[in-house]
Amino acid sequence: MEPTTWLTEQVVASFDGTPDPRTRELLTGLVRTLHDYVTKHDVTEGEWARAIDFLTRAGHLTDDKRQEFVLLSDVLGVSSMVDLLTNSRSPDTTPSAVLGPFYVEGPPPRAHGDDIADGLPGTPLWVDVRVTDTGGKPLAGAVVDVWQSNEDGFYDVQLPELDGPVLRARFHTDGDGRLRFWSILPHEYPVPGDGPVGELLAATGRHPFRAPHLHFLIQADGHPRLITQLFVRGGKYLDSDTVFGVKEELIAEFAERTGPTPDGRALDGDWRALEFTFRIG
Amino acid sequence: MEPTTWLTEQVVASFDGTPDPRTRELLTGLVRTLHDYVTKHDVTEGEWARAIDFLTRAGHLTDDKRQEFVLLSDVLGVSSMVDLLTNSRSPDTTPSAVLGPFYVEGPPPRAHGDDIADGLPGTPLWVDVRVTDTGGKPLAGAVVDVWQSNEDGFYDVQLPELDGPVLRARFHTDGDGRLRFWSILPHEYPVPGDGPVGELLAATGRHPFRAPHLHFLIQADGHPRLITQLFVRGGKYLDSDTVFGVKEELIAEFAERTGPTPDGRALDGDWRALEFTFRIG
Ligand SMILES: [Fe+2]
Ligand SMILES: [Fe+2]
Repeated sequence: MEPTTWLTEQVVASFDGTPDPRTRELLTGLVRTLHDYVTKHDVTEGEWARAIDFLTRAGHLTDDKRQEFVLLSDVLGVSSMVDLLTNSRSPDTTPSAVLGPFYVEGPPPRAHGDDIADGLPGTPLWVDVRVTDTGGKPLAGAVVDVWQSNEDGFYDVQLPELDGPVLRARFHTDGDGRLRFWSILPHEYPVPGDGPVGELLAATGRHPFRAPHLHFLIQADGHPRLITQLFVRGGKYLDSDTVFGVKEELIAEFAERTGPTPDGRALDGDWRALEFTFRIG
Repeated sequence: MEPTTWLTEQVVASFDGTPDPRTRELLTGLVRTLHDYVTKHDVTEGEWARAIDFLTRAGHLTDDKRQEFVLLSDVLGVSSMVDLLTNSRSPDTTPSAVLGPFYVEGPPPRAHGDDIADGLPGTPLWVDVRVTDTGGKPLAGAVVDVWQSNEDGFYDVQLPELDGPVLRARFHTDGDGRLRFWSILPHEYPVPGDGPVGELLAATGRHPFRAPHLHFLIQADGHPRLITQLFVRGGKYLDSDTVFGVKEELIAEFAERTGPTPDGRALDGDWRALEFTFRIG
């Protein structure tokens, strides 16, 4: 037996006493996977040390507002793959998308009709969405979390000068499963480039941009949670989203409008309107 | 094409513009490896979130005195595998072993004959080693770093109450490539159990112990660096070292002795003597 094969078998055997079979499967599979990877590519000590250093710096950057490991998983397409595997829903339901690194637990409650941009610059956006079951029955009282970046491409948690959360809200659907609010048109934005993941993108000639999108996390009693994103049709980077999050069914019209608004809000210029129905399983 | 295959090919293609071919190989290989792993084992979002949490906690534990990622790599046998691949030396040279998480750059210089245990309790150990090339020619002026745990199994960096380094030293070989000093007999010890790696070992029913050993890092001009460990013949856990570091050629006699010592040091009880010749490439 090759010394490398012998080593792998020794490590795999060390997990023989693992009480939980799923844990044993995942760990012995991980050992074989990592051993195969370093063997196949003849990874050197120097290269492995760089990988350890990469993980260390990612860990030090990560806190309650920044998740460099999620970002790494995103730009390697692993988050999208796990999403695909976990949420292989029926064609009757709205597809899911990755959570991304900027979700914050417990967003501030907002009332219908509010402007979650709190007057920040940008093209006004009227959002009018519904949540239904797969049969089209409206789901009242569903919890809908929404979050997005500002016009410069930053989420509130990336801006220490802000007083509190903005462009981030929790709503409950009304009796018709409906929910309306004002925001601003989301723009493409780069994922954070000041950490090891940013270095990885730069070193590989990849652009760091996400196609413009709005995040949704929808929870209704008795239904599986839906984490998804709606992408702006015609927006940039739809074909090369840096976290591989775009699905055709999630590209929505953010229709250009002028003139009177649905709730009588007075606006000087153009605005946009998004209508969408989320069907959850 | 399966949606999972399509996603993998999309991510691999995103690295097409990577200028450095080795970087491209390692990253596209990593993408295929990770995608295959999560697909083959049908990894769920919850499981992936646990993995992200594991890495995050490992990152937060890691500082200049604690390296949880190296420890993870060690207990999964990846460090030993990379060592095996990098240092597949000729049978004429002393085999290498992993660096481990407790090496500290720039250990304190010590003179020949010193007791690097500074009087700490333990069985006195006389170390008498030589460094030669593969032809047996002594290498004078080689830099030899030595480090080990105390009798309770702790390295100095794990003991915040200590004033400074102990059981950790830098020597230079004399004109005969030789080097002698006092220390104490190394004991088996558990790897740190208070972090995510400790949880992994506990959850899998693995013991956390390393077989007793002394670490050496040897640098001589014009020769490749040798990182290795000498294991105590007859010591515990030689067959189940938790980081898979034991190689037959690195198991050495730590011979039991009584009576007069080589340098006339007065000792009441038994002591041990280690003689070894390191042959470097
Ligand atoms: Fe986003
Ligand atoms: Fe050690």
